[in-house]
Amino acid sequence: MFAFHNGRFVQEDETRIHFDDRGLTFGDGIFEVLRTINGRLLFFTEHIERLLASAAFFGMQMPYDEEQVRTTARELIDRNRVTDGELYLELTRGVDATRRHRYPRAGTPPTFFMLAFPLRPLDSGNWERGATVYTYPDLRHGLCEHKTLNLLPNILAKNAAYEKGGYEALLHREDAEGRYVTEGGSSSYFCVRDGQLFTPAVRNILASITRQKVIDLARAMGHTITESRVGLEFLLGAQEVFLVSTVSKVMPVRSVDETSFPAPGEMTRRLMAAYEGVFVAGFEPI
Amino acid sequence: MFAFHNGRFVQEDETRIHFDDRGLTFGDGIFEVLRTINGRLLFFTEHIERLLASAAFFGMQMPYDEEQVRTTARELIDRNRVTDGELYLELTRGVDATRRHRYPRAGTPPTFFMLAFPLRPLDSGNWERGATVYTYPDLRHGLCEHKTLNLLPNILAKNAAYEKGGYEALLHREDAEGRYVTEGGSSSYFCVRDGQLFTPAVRNILASITRQKVIDLARAMGHTITESRVGLEFLLGAQEVFLVSTVSKVMPVRSVDETSFPAPGEMTRRLMAAYEGVFVAGFEPI
Repeated sequence: MFAFHNGRFVQEDETRIHFDDRGLTFGDGIFEVLRTINGRLLFFTEHIERLLASAAFFGMQMPYDEEQVRTTARELIDRNRVTDGELYLELTRGVDATRRHRYPRAGTPPTFFMLAFPLRPLDSGNWERGATVYTYPDLRHGLCEHKTLNLLPNILAKNAAYEKGGYEALLHREDAEGRYVTEGGSSSYFCVRDGQLFTPAVRNILASITRQKVIDLARAMGHTITESRVGLEFLLGAQEVFLVSTVSKVMPVRSVDETSFPAPGEMTRRLMAAYEGVFVAGFEPI
Repeated sequence: MFAFHNGRFVQEDETRIHFDDRGLTFGDGIFEVLRTINGRLLFFTEHIERLLASAAFFGMQMPYDEEQVRTTARELIDRNRVTDGELYLELTRGVDATRRHRYPRAGTPPTFFMLAFPLRPLDSGNWERGATVYTYPDLRHGLCEHKTLNLLPNILAKNAAYEKGGYEALLHREDAEGRYVTEGGSSSYFCVRDGQLFTPAVRNILASITRQKVIDLARAMGHTITESRVGLEFLLGAQEVFLVSTVSKVMPVRSVDETSFPAPGEMTRRLMAAYEGVFVAGFEPI
């Protein structure tokens, strides 16, 4: 398998990263994960624009423009003969001589690499009968509108869910009004109450591309969506719950902890079907 | 310069890290920074015990015991001819075949490396006349009792301070009672009011080794220390403020944003002098 690293195609299992890469020592970097099928890239423009916006926010240099990434990504996918897979992009603030918090001096090259690999094995039963989900405290930082490398709280939450046989964790914070649910460990979520859709507003959660596609789709279908704080009790009292992400697409939720939901529910079923059209149309032509 | 990496001494500038190292993709790792002088290691046992405790907390394997790390660290320092310097240790959950949140299967070797390099250049004026410090929102996660690789919020805070010519950032959170100060971007802090010392209790801040040494020292000197929430206004109304860390030792603070403090103040001066004794005694014999 090949990787694309700082301008070159290299073997993925070659070790190319320095001990002093700020991605490795400080989590000083960002990433994207895209879906690829038959050499086409799903919502490529949206992903690369989000990466560029986060790079600008953190003051990181992105050494390639959108067209260069597109061309290189396609070659990488082609070289690795990935037909149905994932494309991973990572950008870090580069290598500094010794570990210092201070940003490297201007002109220090960033580290950029891409990996392309077959789609992770997924249990189709999660779409047919719904996924099991477990709640976990949201221990994340205040930079969750960006896809940063600071993912240890997500790792803990998702692995706690995996240990119980779950598919995903739903993260909750607490304030004076009680517990509220922010997002999944690597997905967004919606719930349905009385025929209306609810999902958290983008405040320290990711402006998920799939989330926005589903919002646009649901509105086009005439549904009402409220973007606001979703209390845990409110969520547990919903008629339907579903996850959305690049890999999960629209995935019904069968249970959150001990609470069961019909899966897929009526609204979820309609959105799953409609999203397939968005999904297919969202792949950039070769 | 040499690095010690997974059992071998290698050149530090060799690239030895995989694209798929979980330290690089998820920040799934922990670290320590120690001070070394003439081949001796400051508070080695405390640092290694903290690393081992955090590894256990996160379910990470640490492949070397305390004595192996000690012996290897000394050889690394010796090979690099570091007389007055720093030793950096990093442990990650290792390399997985492709990027997955799920922990690698049991037996997957972790990544462990150590770097040894000369002490960063420090302005002695910071101890003589005090450091300038700037406040910044504490955007960190809920895992701050551990030295994790999830340091992007610290990086932002410290670089905002650097841009203003400051030495360190002091991080503040907000609750119903107002703003309170948690710790520095890479240090702990104390303030003095009416002859008494105040510092935050260890609740989502690091159980800093230097902090504990200073607490023990101050108590032995007969001072009263309160470990509790320190409001920002309370801090700004203090008679003295000082930072503590492995590298900063006890460092007086001359200003926090626009508020000036006598630096070094009386209490700070006494603790700086007394800490020199702890510092010298704290180096493990060769």
